[in-house]
Amino acid sequence: MLLQPVLIAGEWRQAQNPVGDFAAVNPTTKLPLPDRFPVSGRADVELALQAAQEAVVALRSIPSDAIAHFLELFADNIEARAEALVELGNLETALPPDPRLRSVELPRTTDQLRQAATAARTRSWCHATIDTQANTRSKYGPLGGPVIVFGPNNFPFAFNSAAGGDFAAAIAAGNPVIAKANTGHPGTTRLFAEAAFEAAQASGLPVTMVQLLYRIPPEVGLELVSHPLTGATGFTGSKSAGLRLKEAADKAGKPIYLEMSSVNPVFVMPGALDERLAVVAGELYASCALGAGQFCTNPGLVIVPEGEAGEGFLAEVRVLFAANPAGTLLGAQGPTGIAAAIEVLQQHGAEIITGGQALEASGYCFANTLLRVSGDSFLAHPGALQTEAFGTVSLMVFARDTEQMKEIASALEGNLTGCIYSHSQGRDEAIYVQIEPILRQKVGRLLNDKMPTGVAVSPAMNHGGPYPATGHPGFTAVGIPASLLRFAALHCYDNVRPHRLPPELQNKNPTGKMWRSIDGEWTQKDIE
Amino acid sequence: MLLQPVLIAGEWRQAQNPVGDFAAVNPTTKLPLPDRFPVSGRADVELALQAAQEAVVALRSIPSDAIAHFLELFADNIEARAEALVELGNLETALPPDPRLRSVELPRTTDQLRQAATAARTRSWCHATIDTQANTRSKYGPLGGPVIVFGPNNFPFAFNSAAGGDFAAAIAAGNPVIAKANTGHPGTTRLFAEAAFEAAQASGLPVTMVQLLYRIPPEVGLELVSHPLTGATGFTGSKSAGLRLKEAADKAGKPIYLEMSSVNPVFVMPGALDERLAVVAGELYASCALGAGQFCTNPGLVIVPEGEAGEGFLAEVRVLFAANPAGTLLGAQGPTGIAAAIEVLQQHGAEIITGGQALEASGYCFANTLLRVSGDSFLAHPGALQTEAFGTVSLMVFARDTEQMKEIASALEGNLTGCIYSHSQGRDEAIYVQIEPILRQKVGRLLNDKMPTGVAVSPAMNHGGPYPATGHPGFTAVGIPASLLRFAALHCYDNVRPHRLPPELQNKNPTGKMWRSIDGEWTQKDIE
Repeated sequence: MLLQPVLIAGEWRQAQNPVGDFAAVNPTTKLPLPDRFPVSGRADVELALQAAQEAVVALRSIPSDAIAHFLELFADNIEARAEALVELGNLETALPPDPRLRSVELPRTTDQLRQAATAARTRSWCHATIDTQANTRSKYGPLGGPVIVFGPNNFPFAFNSAAGGDFAAAIAAGNPVIAKANTGHPGTTRLFAEAAFEAAQASGLPVTMVQLLYRIPPEVGLELVSHPLTGATGFTGSKSAGLRLKEAADKAGKPIYLEMSSVNPVFVMPGALDERLAVVAGELYASCALGAGQFCTNPGLVIVPEGEAGEGFLAEVRVLFAANPAGTLLGAQGPTGIAAAIEVLQQHGAEIITGGQALEASGYCFANTLLRVSGDSFLAHPGALQTEAFGTVSLMVFARDTEQMKEIASALEGNLTGCIYSHSQGRDEAIYVQIEPILRQKVGRLLNDKMPTGVAVSPAMNHGGPYPATGHPGFTAVGIPASLLRFAALHCYDNVRPHRLPPELQNKNPTGKMWRSIDGEWTQKDIE
Repeated sequence: MLLQPVLIAGEWRQAQNPVGDFAAVNPTTKLPLPDRFPVSGRADVELALQAAQEAVVALRSIPSDAIAHFLELFADNIEARAEALVELGNLETALPPDPRLRSVELPRTTDQLRQAATAARTRSWCHATIDTQANTRSKYGPLGGPVIVFGPNNFPFAFNSAAGGDFAAAIAAGNPVIAKANTGHPGTTRLFAEAAFEAAQASGLPVTMVQLLYRIPPEVGLELVSHPLTGATGFTGSKSAGLRLKEAADKAGKPIYLEMSSVNPVFVMPGALDERLAVVAGELYASCALGAGQFCTNPGLVIVPEGEAGEGFLAEVRVLFAANPAGTLLGAQGPTGIAAAIEVLQQHGAEIITGGQALEASGYCFANTLLRVSGDSFLAHPGALQTEAFGTVSLMVFARDTEQMKEIASALEGNLTGCIYSHSQGRDEAIYVQIEPILRQKVGRLLNDKMPTGVAVSPAMNHGGPYPATGHPGFTAVGIPASLLRFAALHCYDNVRPHRLPPELQNKNPTGKMWRSIDGEWTQKDIE
């Protein structure tokens, strides 16, 4: 049986000496899907890296408008394939076709690509900075090597390695991409890569702008992220895989941006419970259950005050967890991973209130699970009790008083998000001002009265946070143009002759709309 | 004999259980200076980190204006101590009092601190970004832990761990600093820390805003940069020390910014030699000899065309190297380090044209050294032939033709700078357009017709570059406000109630002058 082709060096071709092959599994039936995909070895990786160099070189003389045009054509191509993408995406991930895939994730994906196109066209993202007196000019530019993108299993479209946020950011910043498909949805990724490849050809971009591998052995992955020809890596996935890649990339001095694990603490203050216990419980359940709990911003840790109100809140949430059906998980590692995480939580004092076991079903299922633990127990084992369970699982921590709530906040690891629910008329203000400064340092995005799921693609978004949520607290994976800066190098031009400067740094504003910082003032004007 | 006190936890105190002691050595006489300084062990490090936490917490409610005031007072205090600093700086480093220390480096240091103060006061550095529709707001903020600064030996003022660029940037971004003095100039560093400590007290900043250690064993250094309480590290120094610290920090997920080694290639094109051979030779020598060649941007690699013009250039440069006296080096490791580097170069085909040996002198001296190598030899051993010799040492590479010049450019490692000298009337344009795109990706700062030493403190400066010149290609160590971003985390506020937002993200512009990106437009206006 012929394996599905990889996209390397400008053509769809059979993998060279694949070291194995695999099929995606339909999570609803636990049965393999018909297509078989190669596990690529060193030969494919080496060829892809060499071929990407051709794109790197060609891109030096390709205008940003062509890149923007590519991204827009690609978005159009995706829309033209929407039905095929939704169908295969659903088969490979069990995520519902509607509204999730068709009406939410696909438009988000094309919207992201179009925002990236606008960023590439307007060019404000590159922070052109000009000191006219010193005649020193700088801006962010491409990395000089391809960006390797490892996509996660939980967003087959919006974070797809060949179409998602990292892809869009890397391309818009002027880098070619080598996509490593998530092995959960290789077929979906192939459809995206086809659409991208066609767009690259139609827009006159190098044909090695986008390349695709489906799977590589772990040791080859380490070589890929640390290879001398590699520019940088964007990785979204598990902490264990992320940390292995990080170690290899760090040792080689190659930038790597990781979005790993996060339990996304939610602090519910007494006044919020007095005022709207049921509302908050409903919002918590809805956020926990979104995508069968498989969101990186899923609220897995809830801190409530000890006592009647906290107990009432737990009871209300328990009812919602127990009464609602469990969703189908993305794969076999779903139930086993959740079970392992719950075991760690239990071993360190957490008590299951509802759920706690995998469900007998045709698909991969785990019961919605709510656990509780005392503040004292949490503070005795803060590391273990922040173990992420990737599903509809939440641990409620009961804090004795504000002082203990502060200690819990201080014991948090780096997270993507942190929420504080408080009384709408200010009754919790005295507690808020004690918790917020601590929580602020622990999270990338701080929310009020709102659950963390739902990451708007906004220029002001931060989908990032301190380690180990990510590998660096200064970058966001979502939000254009900021996300482009991960895949850029700072390029300074000192006394360079005017006609040799890139257009963005010449006296004339190349688009008339590009924002530049000239002698300390942000402006869209030309230099006189 | 009482050791010099460390500055920890808000007081000048004896080190706790020091693991040794040392004195600075006068490089002009090779004799130790009278003061003895402690080598701190774990106890001092742990105490300093704990004490820094108090400053981290206090800083959460201290306005930026107070930080700006501190930086300005500190600059004033430095000026008040100028004579003492110049005297001791000269004794410890042998750098000339005039013009170097008094008229160049000291004003640069105070100017940098005042620029940092302005940045802290105006706050545009924090890139406040507001999406009014989504009510999502973000900006850069402090790290939540102190910044550890390791200063280099070659700039006792401007890159001093307790007063230089990293210090100024870390403080202006709202972080306390733990300075690790360069062991070459501990007394100078103590003077700076005294001035800083007084300024902190006078401006109402936490007394643990600045702390000072003189020396720590290597293994304690690794613990310091990877400690859970540490925010980030700024290191300027040798590649070997930098890479050891990087490994430890990376493993702990702690940001570390390194400025390590760089040979700063200079490409001299045929037209430039035809037109102004002697001028270029003079500029090259002057740049090579600045600070006895102990500049991170010292031009250590010069690529010239094979043939008569290239040979003539070599001869001209040789005369300058041979005729001018060698400067006094910073320490005993100067001559031995240079000798070791030259040996590596020779072992890989480089030939000494002049110099090549340490000089008998009262101080640490090494003859100005010029070497040559063929393009073929360079391409056979590109790694070894980019070994940095930290002194007035330059290796001239003879390229057969433009093609070989391109290959040499392609074989370069990451560097801080890269220069191209070309004919003023455009005769080298055809070569320039082939070399520049390659060189661009290898360096942080690209220059035309200008040597790389002299790093202006400009907002458009990039004193950074691809690995192994630094640890990350997206950051600069010089240039305000950009250098502050190294010591900052991205803080997003999602649906946060207006009065709870930091002033920089409230509707009203807090300074009236702060630049903010509001709905995609940079503006100094309030939000209506």
